[in-house]
Amino acid sequence: MEIKVNTQEFEKVLNQVVSIIPARSPMPILEHFLLSIKDNMLSVYATDMQIALQTSIPVISAQETSIAVPARLLHDTIKSLTDTDIKISTDKDQKIKVTTDTGVFKISYLEAADFPHLPAFQEIYNFTISTERLKKAFDTANSAVSKEEARISMTGVLMELKTDELRFVATDAHRLVKLSYLDIQNTIEKKIIIPGRAVQVVSKMLTDSDVRVSFNDSQIRLEQGSIVFVSRLIEDQYPNYESVIPLENDNILETSKEELSSVLKRISLFTSTQTKQVKFSITKDILSLSAENIDLGSEANEKILCDYQGTPMDIAFNSTYVSEVIRIIGTDRVIFKLNNPTRACLLEPNIQEENENLLVLIMPMRLNT
Amino acid sequence: MEIKVNTQEFEKVLNQVVSIIPARSPMPILEHFLLSIKDNMLSVYATDMQIALQTSIPVISAQETSIAVPARLLHDTIKSLTDTDIKISTDKDQKIKVTTDTGVFKISYLEAADFPHLPAFQEIYNFTISTERLKKAFDTANSAVSKEEARISMTGVLMELKTDELRFVATDAHRLVKLSYLDIQNTIEKKIIIPGRAVQVVSKMLTDSDVRVSFNDSQIRLEQGSIVFVSRLIEDQYPNYESVIPLENDNILETSKEELSSVLKRISLFTSTQTKQVKFSITKDILSLSAENIDLGSEANEKILCDYQGTPMDIAFNSTYVSEVIRIIGTDRVIFKLNNPTRACLLEPNIQEENENLLVLIMPMRLNT
Repeated sequence: MEIKVNTQEFEKVLNQVVSIIPARSPMPILEHFLLSIKDNMLSVYATDMQIALQTSIPVISAQETSIAVPARLLHDTIKSLTDTDIKISTDKDQKIKVTTDTGVFKISYLEAADFPHLPAFQEIYNFTISTERLKKAFDTANSAVSKEEARISMTGVLMELKTDELRFVATDAHRLVKLSYLDIQNTIEKKIIIPGRAVQVVSKMLTDSDVRVSFNDSQIRLEQGSIVFVSRLIEDQYPNYESVIPLENDNILETSKEELSSVLKRISLFTSTQTKQVKFSITKDILSLSAENIDLGSEANEKILCDYQGTPMDIAFNSTYVSEVIRIIGTDRVIFKLNNPTRACLLEPNIQEENENLLVLIMPMRLNT
Repeated sequence: MEIKVNTQEFEKVLNQVVSIIPARSPMPILEHFLLSIKDNMLSVYATDMQIALQTSIPVISAQETSIAVPARLLHDTIKSLTDTDIKISTDKDQKIKVTTDTGVFKISYLEAADFPHLPAFQEIYNFTISTERLKKAFDTANSAVSKEEARISMTGVLMELKTDELRFVATDAHRLVKLSYLDIQNTIEKKIIIPGRAVQVVSKMLTDSDVRVSFNDSQIRLEQGSIVFVSRLIEDQYPNYESVIPLENDNILETSKEELSSVLKRISLFTSTQTKQVKFSITKDILSLSAENIDLGSEANEKILCDYQGTPMDIAFNSTYVSEVIRIIGTDRVIFKLNNPTRACLLEPNIQEENENLLVLIMPMRLNT
């Protein structure tokens, strides 16, 4: 093997794939990149056995090769070089050799034959979606994904294909996010659960243009340009989330998202360390937020203007959760739909995006009196 | 107590003093600011019993008060507010009350009488130095301060007043830094050892103009504008560092500092994890750096141009140490003065700044053959 590459182009590819490499793996070979040359393309592949990523750049080479190279050392070496053309070759002593104008860097490689792959992928369905919409759905849902492994299905994002919409749902039992694209029709109805980690990793990777999404019962595959990303699915039943979404929340509060975020940031400094409780006291024109930390003897109260149609109400939330869900709302003003202080509260943007429906649910806390 | 302050001005003061607050202290009162009002000045004071900082801003108040307020909560609260005027007052229930246009924030305070202070300070000598020169001396010396508590004097910076110079020295036994200002005369000869932490903290705090430095046998005090910084000294004997500095290093290597740094960054990826050894192979025109990690089977070699007057030599260094000491040199080209591969090596800028002498010493390692 002997190829020439530009350090900046190669670094860009390695930057993407290195995000898949596990920090420490019981299988050391997973801390390697699989570098393959075929048909004048150099492809870089990595997997942690749950997710896998491959991307490639054109090179000139008559040979075909495949070797496993220590990922971080190769990445760090290429990163440390300035923008220049380098030669990459293999040595007879089973080393990959990076040659620059002034230096030579050698790294032992392993045989490609030992490199594990995810099971072969056979798609049962595919569709195409813009990167912008897929990223929005993934980032929105990801903010409500559960960190607790107890219910494995809730550590993933539900992607629900319906004949008249494409829907993304996530919940950790404290909050729930549902985003529907109403102009995406599907010829099948299908629910799949994508692991939270896969959603996080791939969202950072996608750049522009469209993404081709395909899946079968055990894997999902995303393709964009030279990037191919595959993840195993969570093969489990997703909770019946629709039964949780209240339909009769007639008390409607509208306020500035920016101001509410800013007030919450201050008030949350004064919440109890255990409960993080912030109390919303809602009247016709004034939303008053307050918190108290009895251990420290500190307390805070702040008021913002609002429009409220409904019964005056005191309702309490975990300040971290409410700060996080407000961030999901894209509009300047946010709407809270309330029932009573013990029932689920809905949050929505004051204006839905065209062909889109975003709904956020947050559970209140029992009010400290 | 009732005063009006601007959030941005108050935040600036708190930002400085909060750096003194210990992360967690067995004496909870040390996690407080001492706020005092006297003669229309609001002063903020903190100490960890080793170092202490006070700074102040003008306010309008007929009263005199002194209270101890939880430092981080007050700092975070003021930081979270936008640029506005606020009222700070005390409540009858022993709380400090921050009032904005829309909110009220209350924090329990402690009595000032319980607040500990460093021993009273009586100066025996003082001098004035520009911030630029003091910062340079502190930052330069700080890079060689020992992290090991075994020899307590080496965890500090030696400040040595001579009749014809002011000198700063630090060493961790692997390297030594000595910076002399040759145009600062003193009427006394005196050595004091300033703790490394004091040097780090105060260097970030000083802004422009001059600094008044005063000391006695147990404390040093730095004053600039409204900032007063005090630190206990390390009352111990400093090692006889002068006997370590070689006088007969006649092999002279000169090379580009920038290129050498950049090569070291790459080569250090390939050093042994334990020894960090990088080998310098020096000939008349070429400095060749190499490293090998036998466990990983990786190795690297890179060459840069140099001017060398002396016996061709292979000499080895810890790559981290040599990268760090090179950073101290301010000029584009760095000079290495060598004796032989087992003796201390000196580094200097190729041109000394006017009225200044900078010398860096680094110990070589035993060469792996």
